[in-house]
Amino acid sequence: MTQNIYDTTEFFEGYSQLPRSLAGFEGAPEWPAMQAILPPLTNTRVADLGCGFGWFCRWAGEQRASEILGLDVSENMLARAKEMTSQSNIEYLRADLEELSLQPDSYDIVYSSLTFHYLANLDSLLANVYQALKPGGWLVFSAEHPIFTAPSNPGWISSSQKRTVWPVDQYLVEGQRKTDWFATGVIKQHRTLSTYLNMLITHGFNLKHLNEWKPDSEQIRLQPELAQELERPMFFIAAAQRL
Amino acid sequence: MTQNIYDTTEFFEGYSQLPRSLAGFEGAPEWPAMQAILPPLTNTRVADLGCGFGWFCRWAGEQRASEILGLDVSENMLARAKEMTSQSNIEYLRADLEELSLQPDSYDIVYSSLTFHYLANLDSLLANVYQALKPGGWLVFSAEHPIFTAPSNPGWISSSQKRTVWPVDQYLVEGQRKTDWFATGVIKQHRTLSTYLNMLITHGFNLKHLNEWKPDSEQIRLQPELAQELERPMFFIAAAQRL
Repeated sequence: MTQNIYDTTEFFEGYSQLPRSLAGFEGAPEWPAMQAILPPLTNTRVADLGCGFGWFCRWAGEQRASEILGLDVSENMLARAKEMTSQSNIEYLRADLEELSLQPDSYDIVYSSLTFHYLANLDSLLANVYQALKPGGWLVFSAEHPIFTAPSNPGWISSSQKRTVWPVDQYLVEGQRKTDWFATGVIKQHRTLSTYLNMLITHGFNLKHLNEWKPDSEQIRLQPELAQELERPMFFIAAAQRL
Repeated sequence: MTQNIYDTTEFFEGYSQLPRSLAGFEGAPEWPAMQAILPPLTNTRVADLGCGFGWFCRWAGEQRASEILGLDVSENMLARAKEMTSQSNIEYLRADLEELSLQPDSYDIVYSSLTFHYLANLDSLLANVYQALKPGGWLVFSAEHPIFTAPSNPGWISSSQKRTVWPVDQYLVEGQRKTDWFATGVIKQHRTLSTYLNMLITHGFNLKHLNEWKPDSEQIRLQPELAQELERPMFFIAAAQRL
């Protein structure tokens, strides 16, 4: 079972105060890039893996998706999601994504935001997602970029030239990374970009788009601190299709 | 026209002494990974973009490729390639790869080793390569990894924790990088991995495999200094197919 850090009080209280938790897409600067590669949602059946507070599920409802399933391991997050949701075609279920078994040939779109880097057994999840999609269906997901997850000491450093750099090491040493983020010992899985993409390809997906997210100039104008995100990618977004 | 640094005396003399120049594949630790994703070459028509001293062309001849075309911008390298080649089905031609025009539907395999990161106009080259391949044909190439090309100061640094790290900055700022490598002011083009892959996808290629190269344990045992290559990838290798 995946570490359920979201249900520890310390982590949940911190995480709940993040812009993306309070304001949803308004606080998630990568959302416009993700939205841009999503297919139209009207009359689609959608699953959201790691739905959190349900921001995407409610947005999918507004886009007139016909049925929306939000899955998450965190009881706290699902409870908050349900409180904020009034649409009747959205269902939230607690699930361990590493042991997921979605119905075959059922979904038009499987979506997942910043969840896959927590899963050790991503391979079996992707196998399940592939068969759960209808032919022509889409998997659109984001995850922390391997440049961001790799370092043994993830944090900006000032090099001797007085530039601020991101200290990459262990990029090709895949596996668990422990970081302190709202709580100590948050466990992530570091995988290279090629491992993510080859997993998709091996399961039969056709890679249609990859985005190593960066802020655009308008976002930097409004939030100057985002300029630092040009130095190294924090997230990547991928869109892949079942043929 | 691409900078032809290979024909400056200083650069050529240095480059000629590299293990990969002297010993070919024996001195190129990424070759086994590249060889592993190449389709069988027997009876294929092959083009090698940036053929250098012709190591791959001669190997393709040994694999019984039927016709092999080696292209390079460097007269020095082509002259050396011709000296070392006796097979009659290998032709070497001088060409600016940014203005290449290969015959349509003609090649089974287009190969390129560590060349694309020198080309500013890669997009038009890939368009030409796509139409030059027969349906089902393959493009297999390596390039310097964007983690390697990104930094404003590419060189290992010791962080405060006494670890040696690779100082990534400007990853998302694409464009020219000048480095000093055998000569001053060697010009490379930094592109993100997503830019490389989306270019392939946009031109119609189907990505079949991506490898962010790392040495295996046997290579590290024989050449312990290769262990540092686990910290950050120097090369990536991609295989893509025309459908």
